[in-house]
Amino acid sequence: MTTSQQMIMRPDDANIVGNVHGGIILKMIEEAGCIIGTRHCNTQNGDRCLAALVRVEKTEFLSPVFIGEVAHVTAEITYTSKHSLEVQVKVMAENILTGAKKLANKAALWYVPCSLQNVDKIMEVPPIKYDSTEKEEEGRKRYETQKMERLETKARIEEVVPPPPNPEKHSVGFSQSSLIHLVGPSDCTLHNYVHGGVTMKLMDEVAGIVAARHCNTNIVTASVDAINFHRKIMKGCVVTVTGRLTFVSNKSMEIEVLVDATSLVEAEKGKYRAVSAFFTFISLDKHNRPLPVPPLKINGEEEQRRFEEGNARYLHNKAKRLAEKQQQ
Amino acid sequence: MTTSQQMIMRPDDANIVGNVHGGIILKMIEEAGCIIGTRHCNTQNGDRCLAALVRVEKTEFLSPVFIGEVAHVTAEITYTSKHSLEVQVKVMAENILTGAKKLANKAALWYVPCSLQNVDKIMEVPPIKYDSTEKEEEGRKRYETQKMERLETKARIEEVVPPPPNPEKHSVGFSQSSLIHLVGPSDCTLHNYVHGGVTMKLMDEVAGIVAARHCNTNIVTASVDAINFHRKIMKGCVVTVTGRLTFVSNKSMEIEVLVDATSLVEAEKGKYRAVSAFFTFISLDKHNRPLPVPPLKINGEEEQRRFEEGNARYLHNKAKRLAEKQQQ
Amino acid sequence: MTTSQQMIMRPDDANIVGNVHGGIILKMIEEAGCIIGTRHCNTQNGDRCLAALVRVEKTEFLSPVFIGEVAHVTAEITYTSKHSLEVQVKVMAENILTGAKKLANKAALWYVPCSLQNVDKIMEVPPIKYDSTEKEEEGRKRYETQKMERLETKARIEEVVPPPPNPEKHSVGFSQSSLIHLVGPSDCTLHNYVHGGVTMKLMDEVAGIVAARHCNTNIVTASVDAINFHRKIMKGCVVTVTGRLTFVSNKSMEIEVLVDATSLVEAEKGKYRAVSAFFTFISLDKHNRPLPVPPLKINGEEEQRRFEEGNARYLHNKAKRLAEKQQQ
Repeated sequence: MTTSQQMIMRPDDANIVGNVHGGIILKMIEEAGCIIGTRHCNTQNGDRCLAALVRVEKTEFLSPVFIGEVAHVTAEITYTSKHSLEVQVKVMAENILTGAKKLANKAALWYVPCSLQNVDKIMEVPPIKYDSTEKEEEGRKRYETQKMERLETKARIEEVVPPPPNPEKHSVGFSQSSLIHLVGPSDCTLHNYVHGGVTMKLMDEVAGIVAARHCNTNIVTASVDAINFHRKIMKGCVVTVTGRLTFVSNKSMEIEVLVDATSLVEAEKGKYRAVSAFFTFISLDKHNRPLPVPPLKINGEEEQRRFEEGNARYLHNKAKRLAEKQQQ
Repeated sequence: MTTSQQMIMRPDDANIVGNVHGGIILKMIEEAGCIIGTRHCNTQNGDRCLAALVRVEKTEFLSPVFIGEVAHVTAEITYTSKHSLEVQVKVMAENILTGAKKLANKAALWYVPCSLQNVDKIMEVPPIKYDSTEKEEEGRKRYETQKMERLETKARIEEVVPPPPNPEKHSVGFSQSSLIHLVGPSDCTLHNYVHGGVTMKLMDEVAGIVAARHCNTNIVTASVDAINFHRKIMKGCVVTVTGRLTFVSNKSMEIEVLVDATSLVEAEKGKYRAVSAFFTFISLDKHNRPLPVPPLKINGEEEQRRFEEGNARYLHNKAKRLAEKQQQ
Repeated sequence: MTTSQQMIMRPDDANIVGNVHGGIILKMIEEAGCIIGTRHCNTQNGDRCLAALVRVEKTEFLSPVFIGEVAHVTAEITYTSKHSLEVQVKVMAENILTGAKKLANKAALWYVPCSLQNVDKIMEVPPIKYDSTEKEEEGRKRYETQKMERLETKARIEEVVPPPPNPEKHSVGFSQSSLIHLVGPSDCTLHNYVHGGVTMKLMDEVAGIVAARHCNTNIVTASVDAINFHRKIMKGCVVTVTGRLTFVSNKSMEIEVLVDATSLVEAEKGKYRAVSAFFTFISLDKHNRPLPVPPLKINGEEEQRRFEEGNARYLHNKAKRLAEKQQQ
């Protein structure tokens, strides 16, 4: 139940100073998860199906990856419920000139098998065998936790407000950015909806532009909060991806990214929020050391509320990291 | 009736010295136009349809764009007739490290809505509201002018003659170049014909190679004359794009680009001229200042005729620019 | 000394009926070979180096690969001489919906390690350990054979003659095609010259267009004769790839592909032949069964000579396949 793949990082995968974009890593992770998940779910009778991404757990980018390095992506199915499966993915970056290897990312993804005949029909997942009952129990706990979180989290209904005409430097409106993308065949491969990895790559791209505008330095993705994929984005849609700063600490920026989809040709169906997430970026100097980040200028109650929510997430994550360190 | 998007320029979008290709800018402009046009035309009842590009007005590349800069593309529907609509597009390039912004390009494109059920059926365009009757009147004038020009201009039936075996340096045959491209799914996205932007990108690529072969320096697209899209290029075609120098002034080169399409699977349909256009390139030194261009060696009457026609276009454009300056 | 990777095949990797292009398979094979070879050659002291492709042995495409299938590429270093190494690569195609797997391709590639400091300096290759002295002996034989062939084969100095103005259907000139490609950063990745796999992909693309123009049906790559990479193609070059039919049997077409490179910025260096090869294509019906191929119309002595040489290669390969079958 494992799969592995290797890819050499190319200039187009990276920013000007050679750091591979977090979005490229997320896309590789999701591709590996989709392959292993789809393969597993088709080992039984019934409709042929595809593993569709429904959730990515919070993930951290542990080391930067550079152009010319080889990324090794290893994926393993670690838990199965009746209708979903968990894939854990590890990304190692190898410098093939020096032989040095480093852990770049570890992520956990949840998939559900969708019938190829009928995209709304969820198939059953064949159970896996566990090495021990402890492993199974731990998996069940992770499953229950994410299930509850997914039920609680509705698609954030936050409105996207266009920035004011001449936004002040270091305000939220100053760095707010959005891109539109017409969903093409390569975004969908086997079915009629966009791969989760493609969407995450676009989200990271926009978040990166927001971060760079705020601090005008080399920036990299530090972490991504848990992402729930509420609704599928179908072929023939236009996707609008908007990013805006919610919170800034001394050395990090939190960017909220909202993904809306509209069918180009069936306008009556209206716009819908497909995904939303929080990306955290840091700013680096020439030697890849963190730089201080300019403070965020807050205007209005809405921005103030989002800032406080972001601060709460920041403090919560900090406490969690500290607790984990003390456990070790 | 406006849309805007932002894209970061990547290494593959640019030449070796970092100048983003004019063709990449044209492709972004056309994508924005296609999205806003298709969206507008589907706001009424009847067949679902797609906005197909029929004409791009003469456009100038006002400032070079570099790798790592963010291109902002803003599109607006500025006129609608019964069966066509005009989209005006503006491209700003932003250096996100310094915050500096510059106007890179302004273009006007004409689209007609083609039914998705039947590619030859032209749908009606829902009328837009104008800010003032003056704006509407100006739009009508632009519409009439381009309509007349499109009726007058047939596809140029100029033959493509292969260059002689050992062409002399700086002759027309020396730099003449052509490429073939097999139309793939990503070139077509939603329908069965190639996006106008994809074709313009290929045309700029060939024109750039012709210009670089003539002067062996860093070259950039300075402007493109009005382009009429006479016939659609369907999926399953091979496109042959040929470029050749027609005219050279002190500091600019005019390159005629001819696009022929042949269906690979329906050979009896034969080859047809789909598009033709004139691209103007300039040669730049390390500091992005214009360099003198080597004179063009003319052989034969045909080349002489094309040179004189090119010279007339050059003088006409020069006079027009001068008149515009004096008006200001 | 093995490496493996997996990739899902996308619409852009295939032709209209869904067959993945042979060139995409060759590119994946070469990427795997470059990674394992570069990694191995950097396990010793001295300059850091890159494995540069110098030869691909004759290879056959054993089963078609389709969009949505997962290609598994496994590479192994099977022989090392003082200055070169052999990599054997196997490609399996897996239908992840049914679990069916098939062998798509087996290939052997030869690499030499080039110093990153000085592209013309060939480094030494650390020796590998063999499972048995027989294996080592077999490897040495393959090494000697290919060395002799590479010394004998100079770059084919065949001239590329442009086709006549109105070529007759099914003549050589009728289907002759060429493309130009400006070498971009993604073609080069770590060094200043184009990956062998990128060149092979372009060669397969041109050969496929020639084959489709000749028979106007669905065509696929059946095999590629041994390819020697005589000279590196450096960054800043324009590559001209030309394909023309040399020989046609009942059910196959042999296409000669010639690759010429010219530096755009250092014009004095002139054009040079970088690679040449023979690709064999077959024509398939809807059920992927071979179709008869229209006979080739020969004009002039040069075409006659090339046809006879092609026929000799065809008969030689046929006899070889027969002998291999009888051995089994």
